[in-house]
Amino acid sequence: MRAPEIIRRKRDGLPVPAEAVAELVAGFTAGEVPDYQMSAFCMAVFFRGMSDDELGAFTRAMLESGDVLDLSDIPGAKVDKHSTGGVGDNVSLALAPLAAACGVRVPMISGRGLGHTGGTLDKLESIPGFEVRLPVERFRELVATVGVALAGQTDRLAPADRKLYALRDVTATVESIPLIAASIMSKKLAEGIDGLVLDVKVGGGAFMKRIEDARLLARTLAGIGRGRGKRVTALLTAMDQPLGLAVGNALEVREAVDLLCGGGPADLRALTVELTAEMVLLAGLEPELARARRRVEEAIESGRGLAKLAEVVEAQGGDPRVVADPDRLPRAARKLAVAAERGGVVEAVEAEALGLAAMALGAGRFRVEDRVDHAAGLVLHRKVGDPVEAGEPLCTLHAGAGRGRPEEVADRVRRAFRIGPGPAHPGPLLLERIP
Amino acid sequence: MRAPEIIRRKRDGLPVPAEAVAELVAGFTAGEVPDYQMSAFCMAVFFRGMSDDELGAFTRAMLESGDVLDLSDIPGAKVDKHSTGGVGDNVSLALAPLAAACGVRVPMISGRGLGHTGGTLDKLESIPGFEVRLPVERFRELVATVGVALAGQTDRLAPADRKLYALRDVTATVESIPLIAASIMSKKLAEGIDGLVLDVKVGGGAFMKRIEDARLLARTLAGIGRGRGKRVTALLTAMDQPLGLAVGNALEVREAVDLLCGGGPADLRALTVELTAEMVLLAGLEPELARARRRVEEAIESGRGLAKLAEVVEAQGGDPRVVADPDRLPRAARKLAVAAERGGVVEAVEAEALGLAAMALGAGRFRVEDRVDHAAGLVLHRKVGDPVEAGEPLCTLHAGAGRGRPEEVADRVRRAFRIGPGPAHPGPLLLERIP
Repeated sequence: MRAPEIIRRKRDGLPVPAEAVAELVAGFTAGEVPDYQMSAFCMAVFFRGMSDDELGAFTRAMLESGDVLDLSDIPGAKVDKHSTGGVGDNVSLALAPLAAACGVRVPMISGRGLGHTGGTLDKLESIPGFEVRLPVERFRELVATVGVALAGQTDRLAPADRKLYALRDVTATVESIPLIAASIMSKKLAEGIDGLVLDVKVGGGAFMKRIEDARLLARTLAGIGRGRGKRVTALLTAMDQPLGLAVGNALEVREAVDLLCGGGPADLRALTVELTAEMVLLAGLEPELARARRRVEEAIESGRGLAKLAEVVEAQGGDPRVVADPDRLPRAARKLAVAAERGGVVEAVEAEALGLAAMALGAGRFRVEDRVDHAAGLVLHRKVGDPVEAGEPLCTLHAGAGRGRPEEVADRVRRAFRIGPGPAHPGPLLLERIP
Repeated sequence: MRAPEIIRRKRDGLPVPAEAVAELVAGFTAGEVPDYQMSAFCMAVFFRGMSDDELGAFTRAMLESGDVLDLSDIPGAKVDKHSTGGVGDNVSLALAPLAAACGVRVPMISGRGLGHTGGTLDKLESIPGFEVRLPVERFRELVATVGVALAGQTDRLAPADRKLYALRDVTATVESIPLIAASIMSKKLAEGIDGLVLDVKVGGGAFMKRIEDARLLARTLAGIGRGRGKRVTALLTAMDQPLGLAVGNALEVREAVDLLCGGGPADLRALTVELTAEMVLLAGLEPELARARRRVEEAIESGRGLAKLAEVVEAQGGDPRVVADPDRLPRAARKLAVAAERGGVVEAVEAEALGLAAMALGAGRFRVEDRVDHAAGLVLHRKVGDPVEAGEPLCTLHAGAGRGRPEEVADRVRRAFRIGPGPAHPGPLLLERIP
């Protein structure tokens, strides 16, 4: 079937044969189907969606456009976690070593910060010497020996997705649930995993603002994974205020170390334990979630999670001393407290505004070529439900090499806190579990 | 506003400022807005439509991408007619000289056959020597002296439309009423007209199969024209069976000559008189339609329409003797009668099938580079409501240089006639008038 006919069928809501979908993606990757046909197709998908069969074929074609890892000769279940992106979401930093300490094999390929959300690769690179560009053989070796490997995408991983994402970005076709799902899953399925835990964020600081959209995305992601024979569990979790207290790369690594030492903010710890426990369950290492949680808690209490973090940091060329001494992480030369102008109770903290503020301080990129300042970011002192007196600090800015003047950023950060008479309570963090 | 933001707003059903629409079209024409953004925009328009303001700006930008004729120094009202395309629709061939004979100035720029429908230029070129490529000054001169000029598009007429149409053709974005309307009106408005009569075809042989779509297209076209200060009248007319009896270029010229001699098929004559009368009315030459019709009838009866045709043929380099002696037109070497296999009453004649059959005989192009055989086509002997005996001819094929074998075409033509017990009556030709 020729490309115009495929586009026409999708436009008119008629089914497109799986082979035709596969040919379209393969032709696009090979440069035979021009960008202008692919962008028209993506816009038609925005309005018409994709059937399970179409989406399966679409994802598979993207997956097979590049290398697909085969880890089947490594004993044990290989399970990864993927988050759709939030503010202060450093769960992976503690989760990956914790899961490995519990016996899960974790072949984790992560991305960089996107928009107002952070990326695991940028956080890992705040550890001096840490190398995220791993050759495939070294990646396999780490999964087999350390039990966890933390790497970035190579050019050979789902190149069709990279090409398509660049096109979607400039044709207003990013916000399509099937296209988002195919993009995520084509990369995750290339990791050679047996199972995947999805953390689909919902709320003002997430890409999905409405729970219906997040639910649909979670089900679509899970459907693709199961269609490829993978075990998948999805959690819908709240992303209205930032997760934990730190926003910024080195600041979040420090927070993850605190967590592995038995401390850390309660919300971050609860979510990290929950997601790690889901991985343990999917890996078949425990028969039920309560026991899986307990196993994760024990890995924290015993220090085995922290030791595993030190092990993977060292294995990937990083300075393992940061684990015992987080002051070795990059630190901002200048700090600036943002104080409350009035007393009351914090009723809301806008995660997206704080994510953008951290970016402005240097923690993220406005353009691909921007350099990240690993020390930059901010640390919250108050979250939803906390009382505050006028003049007390709401947040401390860690000013870096970003383009925003700290004083201007401080104003924006202040406005991100809504202070009222109260009482106010944070909503539940875990909204739904899609088994 | 940048292109992705324009696409996004259209995608989400938000208004796009007129200046932004104009910039998009101008950027596309200049090659600054890439095809992949324009095709995504067109697909979003397919689903979301365009507001009057957006469509006005869009059409204007296409119009102003090229030359716009200014005929204001020529006295008298300049009025054209446009048909959305049908089978056997040779109305323009008699209408243009008739309107000119009635005192209307007719600056007519026509197109070639598209799909199963014929094009006025191809029909005119079946007259030996007739030149449709007129320099602008010669076009103006003919409108001023003869009162009518019959030309093809130049490269300088709405080049944005030509570029956009080529893109829409390969991205399944042709079938969008606002995009169709902008394409038509950007070319018509470039003619320097004061008024326009639209013949919007509806039915199996038309691009618009449903009357609601045709009505919307007619209103959209009229709205654009009026927004530019033009007088516009639109008629919705039936295109289920072919108009008249001839389908094919020279065959239709001969039929038009018959009409101007006072003969011709009744349906073709009625529609030609009606559309010409609407032009006379728009030109302000008569105060009401009944009197305008009478004036057109008189131009036929007096032979002034026929004389005007001879005048324009001669002025454009054609052999004016064809008007008195149509046997001078190209004639097919081979004719083949298609007989009815059973007796009864003709209940339906599928115009689209006959249009495709005429193409297969050589009357049209399957690909842009195909050569048209002006002699090829077919002539109907029976239309809806006519009785027929088994073995009597339904149609005669005029076999030309086309790629279809005449015997195979004959089978398809036979199947295009539905013969039943009857009685059957053709529906009304004029369905609606949108003043």
